Amino acid sequence: MSEIRLHSYFRSSTSVRVRVALAMKGLDYDYVAWNLRAAEQRSSDFLAINPQGLVPALEVDGLILRQSLPIIEYLDERFPQPALLPSDSAGRARVRALAAMIACEVHPLNNLRVLRYLQSTFAADTEAQAAWFCHWTRATLDPLESIVASAPETGVFCHGDQPGLADICVFAQFLNNRRFGLADSEWPVLARIHAACMEIAAFRAAEPDMQPDAK
Amino acid sequence: MSEIRLHSYFRSSTSVRVRVALAMKGLDYDYVAWNLRAAEQRSSDFLAINPQGLVPALEVDGLILRQSLPIIEYLDERFPQPALLPSDSAGRARVRALAAMIACEVHPLNNLRVLRYLQSTFAADTEAQAAWFCHWTRATLDPLESIVASAPETGVFCHGDQPGLADICVFAQFLNNRRFGLADSEWPVLARIHAACMEIAAFRAAEPDMQPDAK
Repeated sequence: MSEIRLHSYFRSSTSVRVRVALAMKGLDYDYVAWNLRAAEQRSSDFLAINPQGLVPALEVDGLILRQSLPIIEYLDERFPQPALLPSDSAGRARVRALAAMIACEVHPLNNLRVLRYLQSTFAADTEAQAAWFCHWTRATLDPLESIVASAPETGVFCHGDQPGLADICVFAQFLNNRRFGLADSEWPVLARIHAACMEIAAFRAAEPDMQPDAK
Repeated sequence: MSEIRLHSYFRSSTSVRVRVALAMKGLDYDYVAWNLRAAEQRSSDFLAINPQGLVPALEVDGLILRQSLPIIEYLDERFPQPALLPSDSAGRARVRALAAMIACEVHPLNNLRVLRYLQSTFAADTEAQAAWFCHWTRATLDPLESIVASAPETGVFCHGDQPGLADICVFAQFLNNRRFGLADSEWPVLARIHAACMEIAAFRAAEPDMQPDAK
């Protein structure tokens, strides 16, 4: 039995991703909360775990893993069932690309530290921050919607009828979207996939409100 | 022999990454240039290849691949020699996390479309755009430097003595840094790794100035 410890913040959507993967794999873990609103991720205790000062980080038998997608790839290699990536290279490339569209093009622009920089440097108020969030989210989710809507590989989920890495990213992004007033219905296929995720206990268990540090 | 076609822009650092990987694998390919300064990536011809309107995209025997890191993972699976990822899961997780630090935390904030949005929405002038670029680059390269400086896994390159995925990302990022006046010497270990990359023909061949569309 592996010793697993997740460093997380209930509302962090990258932490949501890792929590879904852990739950899908049926892995037990200790939950260590770091309050981003109180800048606890900048404490020396946390920087010793991740010098970048970002959650999530995952400890597995003493090995410290960072960055949500590489963490999930590691979990998928170490604990193969159920698989979060397809078994063929073309399928893996497709799923990784869908996941990267959210992980590399949406989330990095919209996290708390960026919104704070916009506020402090450009005097962006709440409305301007929301406009920024919506602009970059639409810039990627619109083409993502068209890709999954037209591809024969799309099934109940982004790739076939089993949930995987791309669905995890869509799921976490939609949770964020709602906080900025973006309706799921802007992207009907992604919304259907998000709803299919919500039917699965492992996804529901990863939601912010279900975490020990939720408040 | 595979039919490979790379959709690229000479200066795009995500295109640089894929060009290095193709050259390391010794793969011949057709180079298709899209001029981002002329917004050619928004043309219907290009959107049919990548609805997201981003280079690079790679066609391999008719399969269209998108997003630079998933493209490189695909190339590494299909053409295994030389390997761009370590053979062990812990090593792969480490290299993927180092690459993701650049691919998910630095580059998405600093590409042309984001700088243009800052200009049009917040009236950010050239100086404010450069400050933005430098802020987010340092926010990630500083901890990246400390991680590679202190880790026993670091060798001539980010992970051991053979170049791989993380080095490719460092290499491409340093090319961008210079355009914004960031000196390599801010990050001595990464600068040493970048210099080691420059000793390798496959890296030099991927530089912007070496491309058919360079001007």
